[in-house]
Amino acid sequence: MPCTAEHREGYVPHYNIRTDLALEAQEIIKSQSDAEIPGVASETVREDGITVTRIKVENEAAAQQLGKAPGHYITLEAPGMRSPNTDLQDRLTEVLARELRQFLPLPANLAETVLVVGLGNWNVTPDALGPKVIEDLLVTRHAFEMRTNTLGEGFRSVCALSPGVLGITGIETGEIIQALVQRVKPALVIAIDALAASRLERLHTTIQIADTGINPGSGVGNHRLGVTRQTIGVPVVAIGVPTVVDASTIVGAAMNAMINAFKREAAGMEGLGLHLERLDWNERQILIREVLEPYAGGRLMVTPKEIDSFIDDISLTIAAGINAALHPKVQSAGAGKYLQ
Amino acid sequence: MPCTAEHREGYVPHYNIRTDLALEAQEIIKSQSDAEIPGVASETVREDGITVTRIKVENEAAAQQLGKAPGHYITLEAPGMRSPNTDLQDRLTEVLARELRQFLPLPANLAETVLVVGLGNWNVTPDALGPKVIEDLLVTRHAFEMRTNTLGEGFRSVCALSPGVLGITGIETGEIIQALVQRVKPALVIAIDALAASRLERLHTTIQIADTGINPGSGVGNHRLGVTRQTIGVPVVAIGVPTVVDASTIVGAAMNAMINAFKREAAGMEGLGLHLERLDWNERQILIREVLEPYAGGRLMVTPKEIDSFIDDISLTIAAGINAALHPKVQSAGAGKYLQ
Amino acid sequence: MPCTAEHREGYVPHYNIRTDLALEAQEIIKSQSDAEIPGVASETVREDGITVTRIKVENEAAAQQLGKAPGHYITLEAPGMRSPNTDLQDRLTEVLARELRQFLPLPANLAETVLVVGLGNWNVTPDALGPKVIEDLLVTRHAFEMRTNTLGEGFRSVCALSPGVLGITGIETGEIIQALVQRVKPALVIAIDALAASRLERLHTTIQIADTGINPGSGVGNHRLGVTRQTIGVPVVAIGVPTVVDASTIVGAAMNAMINAFKREAAGMEGLGLHLERLDWNERQILIREVLEPYAGGRLMVTPKEIDSFIDDISLTIAAGINAALHPKVQSAGAGKYLQ
Amino acid sequence: MPCTAEHREGYVPHYNIRTDLALEAQEIIKSQSDAEIPGVASETVREDGITVTRIKVENEAAAQQLGKAPGHYITLEAPGMRSPNTDLQDRLTEVLARELRQFLPLPANLAETVLVVGLGNWNVTPDALGPKVIEDLLVTRHAFEMRTNTLGEGFRSVCALSPGVLGITGIETGEIIQALVQRVKPALVIAIDALAASRLERLHTTIQIADTGINPGSGVGNHRLGVTRQTIGVPVVAIGVPTVVDASTIVGAAMNAMINAFKREAAGMEGLGLHLERLDWNERQILIREVLEPYAGGRLMVTPKEIDSFIDDISLTIAAGINAALHPKVQSAGAGKYLQ
Repeated sequence: MPCTAEHREGYVPHYNIRTDLALEAQEIIKSQSDAEIPGVASETVREDGITVTRIKVENEAAAQQLGKAPGHYITLEAPGMRSPNTDLQDRLTEVLARELRQFLPLPANLAETVLVVGLGNWNVTPDALGPKVIEDLLVTRHAFEMRTNTLGEGFRSVCALSPGVLGITGIETGEIIQALVQRVKPALVIAIDALAASRLERLHTTIQIADTGINPGSGVGNHRLGVTRQTIGVPVVAIGVPTVVDASTIVGAAMNAMINAFKREAAGMEGLGLHLERLDWNERQILIREVLEPYAGGRLMVTPKEIDSFIDDISLTIAAGINAALHPKVQSAGAGKYLQ
Repeated sequence: MPCTAEHREGYVPHYNIRTDLALEAQEIIKSQSDAEIPGVASETVREDGITVTRIKVENEAAAQQLGKAPGHYITLEAPGMRSPNTDLQDRLTEVLARELRQFLPLPANLAETVLVVGLGNWNVTPDALGPKVIEDLLVTRHAFEMRTNTLGEGFRSVCALSPGVLGITGIETGEIIQALVQRVKPALVIAIDALAASRLERLHTTIQIADTGINPGSGVGNHRLGVTRQTIGVPVVAIGVPTVVDASTIVGAAMNAMINAFKREAAGMEGLGLHLERLDWNERQILIREVLEPYAGGRLMVTPKEIDSFIDDISLTIAAGINAALHPKVQSAGAGKYLQ
Repeated sequence: MPCTAEHREGYVPHYNIRTDLALEAQEIIKSQSDAEIPGVASETVREDGITVTRIKVENEAAAQQLGKAPGHYITLEAPGMRSPNTDLQDRLTEVLARELRQFLPLPANLAETVLVVGLGNWNVTPDALGPKVIEDLLVTRHAFEMRTNTLGEGFRSVCALSPGVLGITGIETGEIIQALVQRVKPALVIAIDALAASRLERLHTTIQIADTGINPGSGVGNHRLGVTRQTIGVPVVAIGVPTVVDASTIVGAAMNAMINAFKREAAGMEGLGLHLERLDWNERQILIREVLEPYAGGRLMVTPKEIDSFIDDISLTIAAGINAALHPKVQSAGAGKYLQ
Repeated sequence: MPCTAEHREGYVPHYNIRTDLALEAQEIIKSQSDAEIPGVASETVREDGITVTRIKVENEAAAQQLGKAPGHYITLEAPGMRSPNTDLQDRLTEVLARELRQFLPLPANLAETVLVVGLGNWNVTPDALGPKVIEDLLVTRHAFEMRTNTLGEGFRSVCALSPGVLGITGIETGEIIQALVQRVKPALVIAIDALAASRLERLHTTIQIADTGINPGSGVGNHRLGVTRQTIGVPVVAIGVPTVVDASTIVGAAMNAMINAFKREAAGMEGLGLHLERLDWNERQILIREVLEPYAGGRLMVTPKEIDSFIDDISLTIAAGINAALHPKVQSAGAGKYLQ
């Protein structure tokens, strides 16, 4: 997928709103025209506080329109997660484990290994999701390799790595994963990453699972190389949680709110409508840049003050969901078990 | 200082822009009228890449206008700190040590203890400044108490605490400090805290020293109780670094940029100027709230992705500056020494 | 309790073996004489992989003999915890919660606060137990203070602090706790600390609960000031887990093994028995010091390489047990819930 | 090099004392016979508080005797490091940088990359040396790859990784490094690791540099796969610091002390000498195992309580030394600069 000005990963083309969620890309386009988007199929199921949306981006044209690679996207939304709620967290863990079991192309042979990579920077709280999930994962490959079989029946070979970010390693995350895949030869790669959403209400409440891998420009850390079936030769499932909104998205939303307020105020004013139309996306982008320019050094993120407890909670949920999805024994014992 | 709707700490009254920097409060008011602000004296010295501004808020009227308590504020600005520059960092450490020595009401008797408190949440990177400074501080009170004198001459009695935040302790930071002051009876309290600025270019480049202590509503963590000479009975000097901008400040700035763009576009349009005037602060506040409302859970902060390495650098600078200011022996050895 | 050469906390007098466990002190004395120790009552219950021993040190004479303050000591031993076992961990959490409910002098009024302090150094893995438990605790005092009552019914007022160690603060842990108790006026203090055992098999498998508080010289960090009902005026319950064995204990055990080997080898050798008797405790202490002297800087600890995962597991268990014991609502939801 | 019972890495054959330092292996053998060891050349230089020893293990026979692979070993000893001493720390950084510049087979072309790997477990304080050094390293490879050249002249391409330990990844460290070497194709690998010493006085005071790479069984974490020129095809220089002594070494030392005491006591006793001789290494090993057996789960390490501040200090020293050795610009600016 070429990365053109009009098609930067994470951005919905023509709308210039950054989101790593297929669900939001779809929302944004639909908000402008109520018609279905050709080549995008979606279904939504609500169950007991959790909304599960399954989106299929069926072809390249649809991918171009959404700014999301062709493939399958599952989104779990649980708005109740905003306030601590252990019952909902348990249910979310179970739903996640169930969806992963159906979604992951798991090899029948438990000895074929699954590699889980935790993307992101462990030193920056909203970007630490991946490394935190890795710390709570049940890894077992070494027991298979050493044939000690101390684990007993019902476990799958699982290995994991948190490669760290470019500023610490000097190596692209994608290079490290490619290198490891060539050596470890996993049947499947699962990549965990913190994402950017376009809407604040998605922070703390949403998990996205996608079989499209990690695409350049996505994630809080803005990956430069892709990690996809095309680049590494094995299926790559990405699990992500939005933990930040881009500052440019918030600034854009603020400008929209202002324009709408003007429209209300100026109702009946000859000519103003015209001016509002003229202030098109390009000009707006220039304005957004003007506002954010003074901080020259890289991207600015908007994140809540309470980011730490959220990251802790959702990391446990995801680790427990993956453990239950991968290891038959953990599944039967109940998700949430065997957290190391 | 009463905390009224018009006088919330951190906010410049009538402008509704949040900043913990006296320098910025002064800038904001001056940007509207070029006249000097009555009761506010300031002088600026530039030296080799570092700008030192000394502001005195002389009376309660000036304090009301600025939204900053009466007292002395020193701001060190080093825009070059944005890119790694070890020479500038060394100079900044030295200037900080020098300013602190002149500013701190240090007791002549080295055995009278100074208590340094590191405010903020060590689990949230942009709020971790205080606890990180504490980890690099040279504490010595226990050597004085045990009369072992293993340290030798030239050291002052220094003790330190990072109390942690309300969500971890269930106790207001101010209560913990008050309790400790009553027990330890320091001659001086120094409080380190991460701050909110109103302008993005201040992130990573600015240190504020103030003899007004910690005021309710200030800091990234939004303290509820004040820690000031009035509340704890000993002088309180606050050292702070802006690490975030409030999301509401960015949204406000975006709206301003929009209004200015409209003004340019609509030049000559009868009546529009009037409408723009009408969209006053109250309405604008409502708009800002509308934009940020979807994230109900507390304050949103804007912070750069590279916050981790910045916090590491500036924490070392501040710890080295405090060590050199407090301990005569460290001063003579050169700031930067005796980092534990 | 005076701290004489013969009565250093943590050491069993006359045996010079360091242990923070009353259970081990009793074992050591009993190993020499099978008679009951006057003034020490104990009972042991075994239930499903967990051994619960309740010891009462009834008077000062017994305390002198054991090197443990008069009071009640409960020890939970679960040797199966050495290998990961989530079922056993769940049972241990429940037994701990049950024992705490019976043992803790909890105020009837849920609004009277309980202060939990996490002793030890978060930067040294085997000493980080206390701070780690605090991070997983459900603190609520601020909700009571603000009368927001967002928590709903069934919660007790709980607050917490990890004061940090002398090398970071320059203040004795005991001073910080005393100061906080005077301010917060809790009905009860619970202190969590990493302990030293005398026997390696106790590491990773044992929890001690005692109503005697924290005594000088105890803990991995070797507290200098006591935190007991006598010193702070409210009941102090200590919860501890042995995470290290003192190097001097291991060296002493090695010498014992050597002596026993000699005795076997030298059976029948005229005179050797006499020599072995002569090599008494004082000489042995000198030998132990000779072996450990080259490391002049403080105490050496023996700890397993896998200390990190153990500390993580047992911290969760203890936090879950305390949460369930303190908050009626958590108890009814099942221990392990409401981990923040 | 085959790993036989008589030749386990880290153990000096026939003496069964574990050490990762060639210097100590040589000492142990020399302590028994004053003659030079054939095939081992060494020279010692003392300079201003630092002792530099250069040992060459010239052939396989010498390697067998020492239990150290053939190659060059440099040891820096600075006993004064035990107490904080910033002047000595500066000198040590400079000597380390100088020795590394002479020792490292650095490519003339600054664009050929050097890979630095930080071995060990970041969650276990005495094993965290490698990961801590990596955090303070100046990595630059990404600037070379992107041809942005934002760094300017005088920097070498450097990349880094802390792979984490088997219990977290399920993958041997050696496998991860091999995979990365095949991808990144460095001209040189530098591996940082925490080591085991045989003598307590070496903790906190010693740095070893060796061109023999990482051998199986070495390090606090006991690597299973080797990382050497033979296994990965490029030169591997290992930099290590002893942070622990094996519990078995301490137990052995205790038994030696006991035997010596007996010898003194029993002077003149007919027959005892004979018995002491009989208690040979095999029996002693059985005794050591008896003492340590109760802790079944892996290796026990002896480490000082203050391990945290030591690890922090020495990590900074090593990172500064490597930065100055690798980057000409850092060298000219003074070691200790450009710590990120």
